[in-house]
Amino acid sequence: MAGALPIEFDRIARHFAPLAGTGAFGLTDDAACLIPPPGEDLVITADAVVAGVHFLVDDPPEMVARKLLRVNLSDLAAKGARPLGYLLTVSVPANTPEAWFVAFAQGLAQDQSLFGMSLLGGDTTSTPGPVSLSATVIGCVRHGGMVRRAGARPGDGIFVSGSIGDGALGLLAAQGRLADPTGFLTGRYRLPQPRIGLVDADDVRAAMDVSDGLVQDLGHLCRAGAVSAAVEAELVPCSEAARALGADWLATRLTGGDDYEVLLAVAPEAEATVRQRADLAGVALTRIGSFGSAGPGPAVVVRHSGVPMAFGAGGWSHF
Amino acid sequence: MAGALPIEFDRIARHFAPLAGTGAFGLTDDAACLIPPPGEDLVITADAVVAGVHFLVDDPPEMVARKLLRVNLSDLAAKGARPLGYLLTVSVPANTPEAWFVAFAQGLAQDQSLFGMSLLGGDTTSTPGPVSLSATVIGCVRHGGMVRRAGARPGDGIFVSGSIGDGALGLLAAQGRLADPTGFLTGRYRLPQPRIGLVDADDVRAAMDVSDGLVQDLGHLCRAGAVSAAVEAELVPCSEAARALGADWLATRLTGGDDYEVLLAVAPEAEATVRQRADLAGVALTRIGSFGSAGPGPAVVVRHSGVPMAFGAGGWSHF
Repeated sequence: MAGALPIEFDRIARHFAPLAGTGAFGLTDDAACLIPPPGEDLVITADAVVAGVHFLVDDPPEMVARKLLRVNLSDLAAKGARPLGYLLTVSVPANTPEAWFVAFAQGLAQDQSLFGMSLLGGDTTSTPGPVSLSATVIGCVRHGGMVRRAGARPGDGIFVSGSIGDGALGLLAAQGRLADPTGFLTGRYRLPQPRIGLVDADDVRAAMDVSDGLVQDLGHLCRAGAVSAAVEAELVPCSEAARALGADWLATRLTGGDDYEVLLAVAPEAEATVRQRADLAGVALTRIGSFGSAGPGPAVVVRHSGVPMAFGAGGWSHF
Repeated sequence: MAGALPIEFDRIARHFAPLAGTGAFGLTDDAACLIPPPGEDLVITADAVVAGVHFLVDDPPEMVARKLLRVNLSDLAAKGARPLGYLLTVSVPANTPEAWFVAFAQGLAQDQSLFGMSLLGGDTTSTPGPVSLSATVIGCVRHGGMVRRAGARPGDGIFVSGSIGDGALGLLAAQGRLADPTGFLTGRYRLPQPRIGLVDADDVRAAMDVSDGLVQDLGHLCRAGAVSAAVEAELVPCSEAARALGADWLATRLTGGDDYEVLLAVAPEAEATVRQRADLAGVALTRIGSFGSAGPGPAVVVRHSGVPMAFGAGGWSHF
């Protein structure tokens, strides 16, 4: 909390100190003390979000807070980790109203309670620019149990959680460029659902969170594991709201970002166990294809009606 | 690294991946894996800096990088921790030249090598606003060995490392508002010296880093420990460059920020040990007064020629 002005001390005391957990000393010390669970590894990730880039300037502050935590929690979920705590840096314009902080802190409180973690520290500063937020989220996993992007093998099934494409469609809806009569898609864009508890190194060979679009992220998993991937477009899970928009949006669904679902490589013999865990966690889990040997062709092939799709700026075509 | 654009992957690979250490997987995974040293507690702190607020827009990027790390390292130093690693979020305008990243990464490389830590992860994004940076720095300390702000007792000596006031004077010099013929003060503002290795819970009762001005920060130490502090202004260590500016700058030195020195409470019987460790570390350590019982008066009294000083917007006066 270096360089803080009196108003910043006041803000920290009022809005953030109530969120502080064990080892954070009410945010009154220079640093937090985290006692790692014995024998566990820590899994750590950080993301920044900027108003006008990662969220809309008039998005409700509590939603912005929750999305900031959740984009990080989604990374932990994909690695098989459970959340412990987080640090936060908050840069806001000098005229940011008190109500913004109240709502922002409410969003943090809601999600830290939901995901079982607490605020460990951070910093609030002023900025002449837009609201700029950064969170570092720390989780833990048994020693050696972090699931990597590398590890998929030919013959493994490709699985995804939830439904794919809602985030990208929800952004278009939030921008008023798409009808979203039920508000479902906008909600999916604003509030990702981190799939904590879905991934376990015992039976998941590789995993990552889908944040940059299914096709691109599946490419990362292929490169990390030196494998290829074959996906059936018809199998990729689609929400009712997305389906209602019609087939024209297929390419957007498959390549758009902000899904924050989890992409998994599962060996055939482990499939039943993983499906069981997903059922217990109440998370839909869908097999969308399988990994194969790496070859000279493209790493990721998505087939539609059995024919490979080619994705371009205008949508997609058959190869 | 969610929501990254191709140019961001390229930047990460080119500039940041070479800084990644064990468990960061070359920044190609969703998160880093940190295996905590067995039996040690982690000490964690985060700070944000914004161009035009915490550093000057034309400050050399390598200096900005080093200052970002060092303001956090200064917190670790005050807690008796040794650095392990850090995460970084970097939000920059779309037109930021490649040379900025080259210089910024060079600064990081230099200091992570100097302080024995590595990059664990982070995020780069674009912003329509000024350069906004955030770092979370993680250190470790033997279990129970984090030195707190609370703990000073009446009779303990008040010690500070290095010299006090150079940071605030250096900012004025960097802004062209003060002569700094040798560049020493500007250098002190731009590049704090984290006093890693100075503080140890065995013999230091309480400590914090001096970042918001000696008088204000000493007040924090007093409130945390429910003690008062009496300081002799003439004892507060002053650099040659600051002394050359004359006595008119005394109040600025005592109340200005950006020192990033360490303020310690040391029992009389531990003084020799702490001095010895400071000597070994090559850090000047000065006793500037002593803690007393908390009373009805002001927590911090600074005496000049034996008379209490009163600090105001225009400098200081005797009470």
